[in-house]
Amino acid sequence: MAERIVRTKNIGLRGIAVADTKISYIDGERGVLIYRGYRIEDLAANSTFPETAFLLLYETLPTVEQLAGFEKDLRAARHLPAFLVETMRQWPKTAHPMDALQAAVPLLAMDDPDLLDESRQANLRKAVRLVARLPAVVAAWHRIRQGLDVLPADDTLTHAANFLWQTFGIVPDAETARVMDICLILHADHTFNASTFACREVVSTRAHMYAGVAAGVGALSGELHGGANARVMEMLQRIVADGITDIPGWVRHQLDRKERIMGMGHAVYKTMDPRAKILKQLAFQLGEKIGQRLWPELTHAVEEAALAELSARGKTEIQPNVDFYSASVYHILGFPGDLMTCIFAASRIAGWCAHIIEEKFGDAQGKPALYRPQAEYVGDYCGKLDCEYVPPEKRRDVAASA
Amino acid sequence: MAERIVRTKNIGLRGIAVADTKISYIDGERGVLIYRGYRIEDLAANSTFPETAFLLLYETLPTVEQLAGFEKDLRAARHLPAFLVETMRQWPKTAHPMDALQAAVPLLAMDDPDLLDESRQANLRKAVRLVARLPAVVAAWHRIRQGLDVLPADDTLTHAANFLWQTFGIVPDAETARVMDICLILHADHTFNASTFACREVVSTRAHMYAGVAAGVGALSGELHGGANARVMEMLQRIVADGITDIPGWVRHQLDRKERIMGMGHAVYKTMDPRAKILKQLAFQLGEKIGQRLWPELTHAVEEAALAELSARGKTEIQPNVDFYSASVYHILGFPGDLMTCIFAASRIAGWCAHIIEEKFGDAQGKPALYRPQAEYVGDYCGKLDCEYVPPEKRRDVAASA
Repeated sequence: MAERIVRTKNIGLRGIAVADTKISYIDGERGVLIYRGYRIEDLAANSTFPETAFLLLYETLPTVEQLAGFEKDLRAARHLPAFLVETMRQWPKTAHPMDALQAAVPLLAMDDPDLLDESRQANLRKAVRLVARLPAVVAAWHRIRQGLDVLPADDTLTHAANFLWQTFGIVPDAETARVMDICLILHADHTFNASTFACREVVSTRAHMYAGVAAGVGALSGELHGGANARVMEMLQRIVADGITDIPGWVRHQLDRKERIMGMGHAVYKTMDPRAKILKQLAFQLGEKIGQRLWPELTHAVEEAALAELSARGKTEIQPNVDFYSASVYHILGFPGDLMTCIFAASRIAGWCAHIIEEKFGDAQGKPALYRPQAEYVGDYCGKLDCEYVPPEKRRDVAASA
Repeated sequence: MAERIVRTKNIGLRGIAVADTKISYIDGERGVLIYRGYRIEDLAANSTFPETAFLLLYETLPTVEQLAGFEKDLRAARHLPAFLVETMRQWPKTAHPMDALQAAVPLLAMDDPDLLDESRQANLRKAVRLVARLPAVVAAWHRIRQGLDVLPADDTLTHAANFLWQTFGIVPDAETARVMDICLILHADHTFNASTFACREVVSTRAHMYAGVAAGVGALSGELHGGANARVMEMLQRIVADGITDIPGWVRHQLDRKERIMGMGHAVYKTMDPRAKILKQLAFQLGEKIGQRLWPELTHAVEEAALAELSARGKTEIQPNVDFYSASVYHILGFPGDLMTCIFAASRIAGWCAHIIEEKFGDAQGKPALYRPQAEYVGDYCGKLDCEYVPPEKRRDVAASA
């Protein structure tokens, strides 16, 4: 098969189109993000997370009746199965919330009455359950690890308000709930990022939706992906803890040491991430409201210094990404750093499910093609076709230093 | 970025080389499989699963001392943490073992003292724990779902013998244990199959090893991948249950209806899978020993009929794959169908961990490149750059039939 191999090696598939999609579109040069035809700015200004999730899953914005039905379904589904809460109580309280979330996803599969039904309608029902339940799992684990009671969902609250209520035990005011809601809209999809690709790759084997989502959670946990928002917060807190006031000097020092400025730069965007612009506004709005202007202002100072310094070094394409201001927003909302990636997951679940459904049903050629790339073998041959097996007692000690 | 896109769309990355690897090599035309320079036939004849796992992880066959040390480490690690067994007791007994296994992997992460240490040595220690513990998890879940006691590992038994003991509560004789051992060798690696690629893709975000392995378990569960061995057994049992004796006629009927013969055909092999040849021998050997010749003989009859019929249709490249005879072997060993994919996982964990380490450390260019492919947007634009957002009450009902 060697003659048919296309070499795209060791570039992480950057610039390699692996599929068609109707779900979202990014123009990285101009800073445009579109979900099913709609600009992210329009959705953030006018839509709600349930409406946006409907758009991603059902391919069109809902009518009044459809939206009411979808919100009713979400409310009904967000109560967690009792066995899940019981079993989570047995887990080590020190566990990272993303590990807890990854473990919870296949456990949710065990409770899904549609698990074995691979029709499109059944997959949409699974998606509704996952969108409804992921925030509840995050909230439950955060309560359990602190030794607190798990709070039942409040059916009078919106999706975003209920997430805050179940996490903190305080019903948020409408403005705070709306900030949470917009954050969930902004993170809901982003084409073939690493976690979405992991979801699609896993279900291309015809594995069920939950198996794919657990892979997505795993990919999102990496610091080059969803784990980055927690790293932004660590960076900001270190600046404060170290009493650094000369932000331009600190930025210069970081870049001189080849250290990254967390939250700056993106694989796709070569200008400011359109989501970052909205999150910047939200961070200042929320900071003003709560009287916590420190974090947005510090983030802004780092942004200004970094843009100036990077520009001087000819790197104008390194700009704030979605994590840069979301860290401040989540911090002001009360989320600890290690929960920030879970919020990302609680939003991206809408996109993951839409992509899983597209992977399972959307291929114009009919059944999906299993993702099965090539790799080029550059390992041992012992100078011929294969190495001679010699028994252990005749081997020389050339093993790794292990 | 449009001008830089390489189009490889909707072909599941078939024939696209995405990375270099030193771990394994397949020549699909000639039916050759090599682990780190060694032919699978040599390893099946001479090696053991722990030795092969060492080869995959440490890049070379061990000396006597190294092998003894590695086996000691495996033995020490195969005792499951108490909280894991306790928490598994809360899960629905009807849960599929692959869902249970996927949930267990992040729970094992919570118990790993090296979890946050991303050095190569720490990753190798994590790999030893995963190789040691995955079979114990499979055995534990199989016992728990039957309402049986979870059996402690027996430190006097080999890896393969202990797996059978912990699953069935019977210490196997040496010949039976050796068959299990060879099966584990045969499934231990297979280059960039869908599950291994999922593992690598997830850790390319710098997620930890367990996050990647959970993705691998998810991908393996799909019927186009590891789930196929269970489907072979279902096919054989259906033939028996339906009282079919005219196997060539049944094969013809299947092919006429465009149905696949489960266990025949492979994305990479265009001749008989070298592992299938060995498993065929093992199936007959074990059938003879136990007096259960039905399954290997029936498999053989399906093979003969399918090869003849496919050849007549010009499809000589559809040949028995690894799942074709492994179904009979596992069935005779006493494994129910829904546990067969878990055995695959309990073996492939060695390859997954080797690939995860290669992904994290093996890139000649230094740090790994995050897998972040492109997709081509073929969705809505409303005939211009974007669609106009209209409020719900002004929308027409054009939504999906949901």
